[in-house]
Amino acid sequence: MSGSKAPAMPVISLLTDFGRTDPYVGIMKAVIASFCPEVRVIDISHDVAPQDVCQAAFMLAAAHGFFPHNSVHVVVVDPGVGSTRRIVTVRTTGGLFVAPDNGVLSLVLDDAKIADAYLVENSDLFLHPVSRTFHGRDVFAPVAARLACGMKPEMLGPEIAPQSLVRMDFGPAPYMDVKGRLAGTVVYADRFGNLVSNIGRSHLEKHFQDLDAVCVQAGNQVISGLSRCYADAAKGRLLAIVGSFDRLEISVNQESAARVLQMAVGDPVYVSARKDR
Amino acid sequence: MSGSKAPAMPVISLLTDFGRTDPYVGIMKAVIASFCPEVRVIDISHDVAPQDVCQAAFMLAAAHGFFPHNSVHVVVVDPGVGSTRRIVTVRTTGGLFVAPDNGVLSLVLDDAKIADAYLVENSDLFLHPVSRTFHGRDVFAPVAARLACGMKPEMLGPEIAPQSLVRMDFGPAPYMDVKGRLAGTVVYADRFGNLVSNIGRSHLEKHFQDLDAVCVQAGNQVISGLSRCYADAAKGRLLAIVGSFDRLEISVNQESAARVLQMAVGDPVYVSARKDR
Amino acid sequence: MSGSKAPAMPVISLLTDFGRTDPYVGIMKAVIASFCPEVRVIDISHDVAPQDVCQAAFMLAAAHGFFPHNSVHVVVVDPGVGSTRRIVTVRTTGGLFVAPDNGVLSLVLDDAKIADAYLVENSDLFLHPVSRTFHGRDVFAPVAARLACGMKPEMLGPEIAPQSLVRMDFGPAPYMDVKGRLAGTVVYADRFGNLVSNIGRSHLEKHFQDLDAVCVQAGNQVISGLSRCYADAAKGRLLAIVGSFDRLEISVNQESAARVLQMAVGDPVYVSARKDR
Repeated sequence: MSGSKAPAMPVISLLTDFGRTDPYVGIMKAVIASFCPEVRVIDISHDVAPQDVCQAAFMLAAAHGFFPHNSVHVVVVDPGVGSTRRIVTVRTTGGLFVAPDNGVLSLVLDDAKIADAYLVENSDLFLHPVSRTFHGRDVFAPVAARLACGMKPEMLGPEIAPQSLVRMDFGPAPYMDVKGRLAGTVVYADRFGNLVSNIGRSHLEKHFQDLDAVCVQAGNQVISGLSRCYADAAKGRLLAIVGSFDRLEISVNQESAARVLQMAVGDPVYVSARKDR
Repeated sequence: MSGSKAPAMPVISLLTDFGRTDPYVGIMKAVIASFCPEVRVIDISHDVAPQDVCQAAFMLAAAHGFFPHNSVHVVVVDPGVGSTRRIVTVRTTGGLFVAPDNGVLSLVLDDAKIADAYLVENSDLFLHPVSRTFHGRDVFAPVAARLACGMKPEMLGPEIAPQSLVRMDFGPAPYMDVKGRLAGTVVYADRFGNLVSNIGRSHLEKHFQDLDAVCVQAGNQVISGLSRCYADAAKGRLLAIVGSFDRLEISVNQESAARVLQMAVGDPVYVSARKDR
Repeated sequence: MSGSKAPAMPVISLLTDFGRTDPYVGIMKAVIASFCPEVRVIDISHDVAPQDVCQAAFMLAAAHGFFPHNSVHVVVVDPGVGSTRRIVTVRTTGGLFVAPDNGVLSLVLDDAKIADAYLVENSDLFLHPVSRTFHGRDVFAPVAARLACGMKPEMLGPEIAPQSLVRMDFGPAPYMDVKGRLAGTVVYADRFGNLVSNIGRSHLEKHFQDLDAVCVQAGNQVISGLSRCYADAAKGRLLAIVGSFDRLEISVNQESAARVLQMAVGDPVYVSARKDR
């Protein structure tokens, strides 16, 4: 990212499914402030659907690249809290990641050059007594604060092979189907009802010579050509666009495509060359 | 504001319709932290109704006066993102404002002494590649961070005439109607169901000698006199009050006036002198 | 809390029922930044149910112990705003608390060693004009900021006897009922649908020799034994656990106990010794 500076004190990012009504996020920040008073915390989201590890993986992948490269990213979407699931810290060129080893780092691991990975096991670094239901407070927060304040990941526990980290199955990558269409899937739907697919710009450029001459099929609708911005379409009209995640999105100008098309995460999207060209 | 100090490092305020579920706000803050690590960010709201420029204009007008006078206020409620709509920076005695030129600054411009205004056009200052759908990340965040870190607005692009800025039509100001009533409109409804009108304290004082001797008509209800606090009325009772925005509000003590009266933004409110006085 | 450091500049925590859609919280933070630019603010919650003083009291009790001990905790859940209700500051070994004197500090007062208490009356310290409906902005924010910046509580107003502070009735403490069961009540339900009771670990240990040999009755269900973590139960299965508040909770692994049992705050929970042991 041109022009960015890595601040002297790293930033901590938080991504959880805790919501914002309960005091859980505030308690995590209180613990962080207790262990590393100067660090700044930026919320990626606390409204991951409860226990939705896939959604959290997508949000983390979308967000982490925009943080300073020495940031500490903490993910607490953790259905296995208190069980034998591992907690891990992964160090990449893009920052440190502290998360349950449940696949939530899968997309980050796809993108990043991994340096090394460690188990988070050294209980001297935790808040005591360690509860069995709120490791965000008792494990993740103090560990992240100590890392932000300069502690080496080597202190956390034994180094582990990055290949041993749990990887999640996000379904098939986009592929050419028997009808000659590039077939993809909706992987994220945002507050505006934009439907983000797993079809990246690179997939489109590989399979189609002229992006202005494609048809996008979503639900029972066919969209001709890609728009350059939402306002290219009339208010209320459906459009397809390569959005801010650098992926194909289905949108409706000033309306919700999710509502108009009655589509959601998991539904298919197809791209084909326009017949008339 | 008596007693306030302008901090050495300005504060950045954010006002968007991005919601807090998606990672968009976190990404903006990550970019800000990358370009200006020391700056603090205060959220005015991220729950403006999608694309509701009027609501954002009201919130900004209500909030900005309470910030330090050197703050940088960023508004991203931007249905025209990626189109030819302008992005502008306006410098007033009350701070710097960075927003799409879609009228969202109208009420601020009414109140403030404008010093000067600039187009935000110098793409050297943006994040690249600039997406067509998320200027909050690629334009607003890096520009605001650079301004907070001391960059002069003159660097952003050509100076423009403040009169050229888009102004929004908020409907008629309060007026005396043919029945001799001061007629106004609900312009904001908050979480508590308080109905905030466009009738300011100054309007009331101009038209009525004795504020204790007015009747307020809202929906099919008539409220006699103004209350001094919510608890002046019994629990569940309707009241009229000059609230914290210094405007006439309709409230129900410990209940929602919006629900009780089935009223919303745009509905009329009338004030008249009480007959018996 | 082992390992924690009290930062040079105290943290301010905020707990309100303002929600996050309206600009009220942002305005409070703007006022705080104006009076004490360097202070950090941590949100405990702004989604206390409107005017629900009991819920706020529970959240504050759950959270405040995890903050640095010199923190300033501000609670604005204040149905009596603008009336004659008192505003108080209480200084304990665990920090400073600024709140309306409506019982919201009851649980903190139960736990803490109180040093002293003061009325917040010195209007020289407030924002003027002081509205009758938004003391969060005009009284609580400037007072908290000044306290965080080092002002002594003695400056706020006359000292008062801690015994004069309003205490809230949270209903009976857990008790042994005529059937020989430990009878308690659900006092909090979180986003995940976990039902937190008023039965603490100490109550359980006092009345039952073997915590693995208890039965928990909630709604029309009987749960045998206590789980050590959510994942001890199969997905969708009911469990009882001593949770992160150190109290008995009823949960469903990866589901909502509140929904499954159709239970809410105020409903009874019973613990008895298992017959077969």
